[in-house]
Amino acid sequence: MTVYLVGAGPGDPELLTLRGARLLSSADVVVYDRLVSSEVLGFVPDSAIRIDVGKVPGQPQKQEEINQLLIEYGRVHPTVVRLKGGDPFVFGRGGEEVLALVDAGIPYEVVPGITSAIAAPAVAGIPVTHRGIATSFTVVTGHRMAGQDDVDWHALGRAGGTIVILMGVSRRAEIAEQLMASGRPFDEPVAIVHRGTQPEQSVTPTTLEKLASVEIEPPSVIVIGPVANLTL
Amino acid sequence: MTVYLVGAGPGDPELLTLRGARLLSSADVVVYDRLVSSEVLGFVPDSAIRIDVGKVPGQPQKQEEINQLLIEYGRVHPTVVRLKGGDPFVFGRGGEEVLALVDAGIPYEVVPGITSAIAAPAVAGIPVTHRGIATSFTVVTGHRMAGQDDVDWHALGRAGGTIVILMGVSRRAEIAEQLMASGRPFDEPVAIVHRGTQPEQSVTPTTLEKLASVEIEPPSVIVIGPVANLTL
Repeated sequence: MTVYLVGAGPGDPELLTLRGARLLSSADVVVYDRLVSSEVLGFVPDSAIRIDVGKVPGQPQKQEEINQLLIEYGRVHPTVVRLKGGDPFVFGRGGEEVLALVDAGIPYEVVPGITSAIAAPAVAGIPVTHRGIATSFTVVTGHRMAGQDDVDWHALGRAGGTIVILMGVSRRAEIAEQLMASGRPFDEPVAIVHRGTQPEQSVTPTTLEKLASVEIEPPSVIVIGPVANLTL
Repeated sequence: MTVYLVGAGPGDPELLTLRGARLLSSADVVVYDRLVSSEVLGFVPDSAIRIDVGKVPGQPQKQEEINQLLIEYGRVHPTVVRLKGGDPFVFGRGGEEVLALVDAGIPYEVVPGITSAIAAPAVAGIPVTHRGIATSFTVVTGHRMAGQDDVDWHALGRAGGTIVILMGVSRRAEIAEQLMASGRPFDEPVAIVHRGTQPEQSVTPTTLEKLASVEIEPPSVIVIGPVANLTL
């Protein structure tokens, strides 16, 4: 009996891993999130129990209840797959689920997935690193959680390197302001990749100064740095 | 005629993507690196032309020659796969190859792969982000290239968040020194994941202060931050 925390990848079902696909096709139970595409769920056999624990945007997350579900199913079924959009450990709260499973004595295994933080820019031709231009990249969430310190955007801006923001659409004006205050140039290239790797993918090039006024919708990945317009 | 820049993933051949496996099995030409495992090359049909452009450590990289190879094969063969360890755009110099292909008018497509920066810690149970503990992570190379500014380690240390260092084994003393000088605690948890996702995987927990004196070998991923000992 094992609970597998499997990354479903960034959207395109072809970007699921071989191991992820194999585990899904032999799963007894699949507990999945809102960001998982129906094509990826297509690997799950009809006989499997499917549980949608997708968060409703704006509602409090019931992480405790999800942990409890994993423990209960993990005690009974041989192959329980906890399927998460992207990678389970990139803002996926996979660490909290692992801690709960360890506490309950349930064996677990993490199966990494492709994160949209790297893949959404990549399929748009934007490398998060590039020799002489970006020797590091930082992945950060724009979503600020209650009771949690905000990211130090000033320090992050001064550290250089590419900045990739997930879930940053609604706070983009404030973030751009802070990065410019940290010394990042007003005309620093920015690319907004909407629904990266999916058929509806679109890329909007802009600059830090104009980021606030560009019309964009979630889910979008915001890439900030000279790599953003390298191949355009 | 298309040149596909495909990420081979972190080592475990099961962490290749479905699309990566499909492209390899229909490839006419595969141009691959030293870090690609023989199991991943097992997907390539016998009829395909295989070209090993693996860099010999310490020798200058012949990036220009690789670009030229991709252009020449890309002009003639329908499916040319440029196979790179991890992800093509995470310190993979994929951006330089894309620019060369664009200049030559050769169609290209990027197929992301799982980067060891996230996957090596993940399979060891270490999440690069964790609620209340790490709201961002920075991926950086310890390998300093000639003619290139070094990473601003002080600013990076002050920015907070998890730091993941690839190719940092030989410079680890200097990097730890600079991060401590930036204010990171001497006892900040560090985990060194050697050959992550592979059968020989090993994890060595330590601290910033002791990082210099721990015996480690490349290839290893160094994870710095409170997440490093979260599940130990």
